[in-house]
Amino acid sequence: MRKGFASDNNAGIHPAILKSIGDVNTGHEKGYGDDPYTAEAVDLFRKEFGSDTEVFFVFNGTGANVLGLSSLTRSYHSVICAGTAHIHTDECGAPEKFTGCKLLAVETPDGKITPESVRPHLHGFDFEHHAQPRIISISQVTEMGTVYRPEEIRALADLAHHHNMYLHMDGARISNAAAALGISFREFTRDCGVDVLSFGGTKNGMMSGEAVLFFNPGLCRETKYLRKQSMQLFSKMRFISAQFLAYFRDDLWKNNASHANQMAKILEAEIRRIPQVRITQKVEANGVFAIVPREIIRPLQEEYFFYVWDELTSEVRWMTSFDTTEEEIRDFTRLIKKLVS
Amino acid sequence: MRKGFASDNNAGIHPAILKSIGDVNTGHEKGYGDDPYTAEAVDLFRKEFGSDTEVFFVFNGTGANVLGLSSLTRSYHSVICAGTAHIHTDECGAPEKFTGCKLLAVETPDGKITPESVRPHLHGFDFEHHAQPRIISISQVTEMGTVYRPEEIRALADLAHHHNMYLHMDGARISNAAAALGISFREFTRDCGVDVLSFGGTKNGMMSGEAVLFFNPGLCRETKYLRKQSMQLFSKMRFISAQFLAYFRDDLWKNNASHANQMAKILEAEIRRIPQVRITQKVEANGVFAIVPREIIRPLQEEYFFYVWDELTSEVRWMTSFDTTEEEIRDFTRLIKKLVS
Amino acid sequence: MRKGFASDNNAGIHPAILKSIGDVNTGHEKGYGDDPYTAEAVDLFRKEFGSDTEVFFVFNGTGANVLGLSSLTRSYHSVICAGTAHIHTDECGAPEKFTGCKLLAVETPDGKITPESVRPHLHGFDFEHHAQPRIISISQVTEMGTVYRPEEIRALADLAHHHNMYLHMDGARISNAAAALGISFREFTRDCGVDVLSFGGTKNGMMSGEAVLFFNPGLCRETKYLRKQSMQLFSKMRFISAQFLAYFRDDLWKNNASHANQMAKILEAEIRRIPQVRITQKVEANGVFAIVPREIIRPLQEEYFFYVWDELTSEVRWMTSFDTTEEEIRDFTRLIKKLVS
Amino acid sequence: MRKGFASDNNAGIHPAILKSIGDVNTGHEKGYGDDPYTAEAVDLFRKEFGSDTEVFFVFNGTGANVLGLSSLTRSYHSVICAGTAHIHTDECGAPEKFTGCKLLAVETPDGKITPESVRPHLHGFDFEHHAQPRIISISQVTEMGTVYRPEEIRALADLAHHHNMYLHMDGARISNAAAALGISFREFTRDCGVDVLSFGGTKNGMMSGEAVLFFNPGLCRETKYLRKQSMQLFSKMRFISAQFLAYFRDDLWKNNASHANQMAKILEAEIRRIPQVRITQKVEANGVFAIVPREIIRPLQEEYFFYVWDELTSEVRWMTSFDTTEEEIRDFTRLIKKLVS
Repeated sequence: MRKGFASDNNAGIHPAILKSIGDVNTGHEKGYGDDPYTAEAVDLFRKEFGSDTEVFFVFNGTGANVLGLSSLTRSYHSVICAGTAHIHTDECGAPEKFTGCKLLAVETPDGKITPESVRPHLHGFDFEHHAQPRIISISQVTEMGTVYRPEEIRALADLAHHHNMYLHMDGARISNAAAALGISFREFTRDCGVDVLSFGGTKNGMMSGEAVLFFNPGLCRETKYLRKQSMQLFSKMRFISAQFLAYFRDDLWKNNASHANQMAKILEAEIRRIPQVRITQKVEANGVFAIVPREIIRPLQEEYFFYVWDELTSEVRWMTSFDTTEEEIRDFTRLIKKLVS
Repeated sequence: MRKGFASDNNAGIHPAILKSIGDVNTGHEKGYGDDPYTAEAVDLFRKEFGSDTEVFFVFNGTGANVLGLSSLTRSYHSVICAGTAHIHTDECGAPEKFTGCKLLAVETPDGKITPESVRPHLHGFDFEHHAQPRIISISQVTEMGTVYRPEEIRALADLAHHHNMYLHMDGARISNAAAALGISFREFTRDCGVDVLSFGGTKNGMMSGEAVLFFNPGLCRETKYLRKQSMQLFSKMRFISAQFLAYFRDDLWKNNASHANQMAKILEAEIRRIPQVRITQKVEANGVFAIVPREIIRPLQEEYFFYVWDELTSEVRWMTSFDTTEEEIRDFTRLIKKLVS
Repeated sequence: MRKGFASDNNAGIHPAILKSIGDVNTGHEKGYGDDPYTAEAVDLFRKEFGSDTEVFFVFNGTGANVLGLSSLTRSYHSVICAGTAHIHTDECGAPEKFTGCKLLAVETPDGKITPESVRPHLHGFDFEHHAQPRIISISQVTEMGTVYRPEEIRALADLAHHHNMYLHMDGARISNAAAALGISFREFTRDCGVDVLSFGGTKNGMMSGEAVLFFNPGLCRETKYLRKQSMQLFSKMRFISAQFLAYFRDDLWKNNASHANQMAKILEAEIRRIPQVRITQKVEANGVFAIVPREIIRPLQEEYFFYVWDELTSEVRWMTSFDTTEEEIRDFTRLIKKLVS
Repeated sequence: MRKGFASDNNAGIHPAILKSIGDVNTGHEKGYGDDPYTAEAVDLFRKEFGSDTEVFFVFNGTGANVLGLSSLTRSYHSVICAGTAHIHTDECGAPEKFTGCKLLAVETPDGKITPESVRPHLHGFDFEHHAQPRIISISQVTEMGTVYRPEEIRALADLAHHHNMYLHMDGARISNAAAALGISFREFTRDCGVDVLSFGGTKNGMMSGEAVLFFNPGLCRETKYLRKQSMQLFSKMRFISAQFLAYFRDDLWKNNASHANQMAKILEAEIRRIPQVRITQKVEANGVFAIVPREIIRPLQEEYFFYVWDELTSEVRWMTSFDTTEEEIRDFTRLIKKLVS
């Protein structure tokens, strides 16, 4: 298929990741994570996040989010998140189904929730008629392509902890965020008070694999059972672990993410030269949101696959990925220019 | 306890209801609804709502709502309701827990949702990432004391049915609505396109008992199992049925509800004479919402139990019930006048 | 309906219970248990079971069992019980649905499980592939009409506690057990190591009402939320509490239960005189199990409603209740004699 | 790690499977299954099972089983299976958690259930107190290494269908069964009345990937939503599809499975020469069950990883896989001989 700008998960596997899968394919290993490659991969996470970090590998992002949330909740709890959050709009109700919890969506202009927007939901504590607020969940990068600053995360963590709640981060694109912020993973997660993190790899060059990280071992005593019960325990675990081994080697994660982010910047620059198209969100990672003339959407989609974000306003979403090229962007924007003229 | 204005469920049992419980206490009857009193009570509902109405008695309002919703949904569905809806704010997440569904809350000024406010949630059909919209749920009387007009209900039903969805009504105070509208139950439920109805009795003089009504027998083929599994099947069913027998006899339901509504009107009139208190919602049934000077709340609550609806704005809710007296209203408003002066 | 021997829940309300409901129907009270009658009823339970007993009233037996089990479990746990247990065979899967747990059924000759029969299920601890054994659940009286001796209960509690598990008792007919054993409630529950108890009243003369008792306050920190979420929180709670007030007054519970047990003994004695009928279980409480000639079942059921327990063996169950009379037993057994001859 | 006999999922990826993953890694493809490789893989399944077969790829065996079961059930149903079934003993309660259903375990000598052993659970239809029997589930190959004959499957399907129930097959090792029976997949599944099939690949040389097959399109109308909600929808689906492309090419599935089966036969033959070890189950596929002298277990496990099946009887399970060699078996049995002598 011609490369489009639909999603970073339309890309394939980075060659170094695929090679690493082959490298560990050398015979028998114990299943379900009791193998040396998994131990090594866990160590790499602990180097990044602290030696007492607890790490659970799972298949996909929805699995990671649900496992993290279910580890910290009972069914009478509620989870507060942005209205655009993946857990709210794109997981077909998996969090409600598996945790029993209520999700409370906060409207935002840019995918980022704030203490001010969360606070109206922080009531009814101890009142048995009311689902008890338990988790604030943020996405980093957000679903609108924006990136939380560390101090914004810290403020939400403080708010959560003040109410005996937890801060969950959906890090499906956490590497793009780290590359954008130019700081370590730890500095904007654990060090800012994040309690549980879905660390994504699939959207940045891995084949399949995410990790759920807990920064307080007391929070994940039940997680191993919940992972199995939520159908997220991989028998041949080494083949996820091998991907993470490559992911952290030679800063592959950073190179991939930086490249994708840079391509988004170039795409943004090109688009800004087209007066008929209006960019609607800050381009901080690898996504570009724009309102385009309605009539160009169909002909453009005939050449390039991408998603319409809002039918009413003809807002579209374009994602770049680790393998996007400048030439592809030039071809793409050239077609847009042609269509709008 | 001195009668307050906290809730219509702080009232006791109407004497005729209690007497009816005693009247059927005459020996043995088959359990779980296979008794003549239950058959008779079901017939009374069918007289009101149509002969093919299917009727399931349950213990309480939350049980009724959850049973109705779960009969019409699978876990990947969503339910759209007002942000103030009982199912959203006052059932501790029971709908999510039992159905697995996502609840989508619509903000409203007065507890009433409209096609316009619902429509933004009607997207993502057939898209497997998105919880599938399945039910629009309204409360009649709303939690803000307002009453839907028949044409408003019809418009929501049409919208639901246009999208192959269903309209659920939480009728915890349906008798107050019927008394307020001055029309039959059927005219603003089934005849307006309501598919499933929680018919409440407890808040209008019954001891305990609600009914879930289905106006299309095809919708409740699984309900008898779901009722048992949701712990809402009463072994000595005749003692709920007996309450409904009395409830429909000599228009008891209407007399009780009309009285409560009238008391609310009197309370409203008295309150409107107090310039320091501002009534915030139309008084259409048996609830009065008002913003009062913050400093009078505590001393007033020392004498009369009631709920503060919104701490930030010092809005309070006062409910009247079938046994509220004019004298009690006079005493109550006299104290308010004294406290604000 | 002519009194049959189908179930003790086919009986009505004992007059003293009904009177007590009327006695507390004197005006307004706060809802959901925050009333003086509920406080008084809780105190009565604490007198019986110890002053630190935590008490939660619910509507029915299934609700009580599910609330107790869900308070002590997470979804990856398992519950071990007799194959005849109400939670396994008569609650339409409510425990699985609400707790997510696996139920493991142990076959028994008489409804009573033993450490020997439970032990094969006590494996796989810490193994994430295996639902973790968490609760042993027994019914007292059992569904086969037999009664656990205190030392049998103690042995099961010791086994449970040895494995960091809990002992749950379904006491739907606990009063019949107490009357049969001739000891206090406490002596065969808390003092034997029971952790959580469903205390039933409905089958022994109450209208509707059960209590979930926890003998370790640490076990029920989440119960109030779970009760609401499981649709078992009664708004007009005082009307359950009033029933328990009468139930404990003047030993009503004991008189009712002793009478029912005595009637079963008389029924047993009469039946033993009929050589064509074979009693299959010890008659220790208020149930009589017997194998009857297949051809008499239908004509007998035309006169008296009762359940066939096992179609294959033509085993039937006859239950006596607080209002069964000797004359009714004589009439019933006279008909049996006539039918078998 | 030295190759052991613990599980066929301790093996790695067959080179042809891994190569196929690389072959499709050629750029961008639409996610979630809307790619040409997935279409091609689905076609291969339809060639095997019939052109109207519906195919859903998932990550792992537990996911496949739960998705199949949840597509055919509502929470008040029950699922009847062998006491040794993977869904009952090895999925940490995932089926109960996700479907809400009750699992009813049938004891068997050899992992195979029969109409006779299932029939005692087929009662209580239409009785709302009883979880409604809905599915009979069998494992092919069974967890005891035995293989159902087609006529045995047909008899169970007929029984299921006679009661308006369905037959589910957990085919985690279905290729080993096909190789053992020497007939096509279809002949012992769809043609025998199986309604839904978990088709496993991971245990026979794939990296990760299973398929849920429905032989009646009416049974899977909700499956796409349930797959997403159960966290089993893979974004980069083509990398599962590619594995199946290789799996069906040049009879790879058959060669792998036949080899594993043959290795088990050789292992069996070698073991039968050791009088101190007693084989306990027919060796029909790739598993060998045997009772060994208790004292050899630990020293043997120091050299070779494998599972003790029953601590009490010192029964062990040895599995062969697609990459087991005769030499490894010789080394292994040589050590056993040494240890027992």
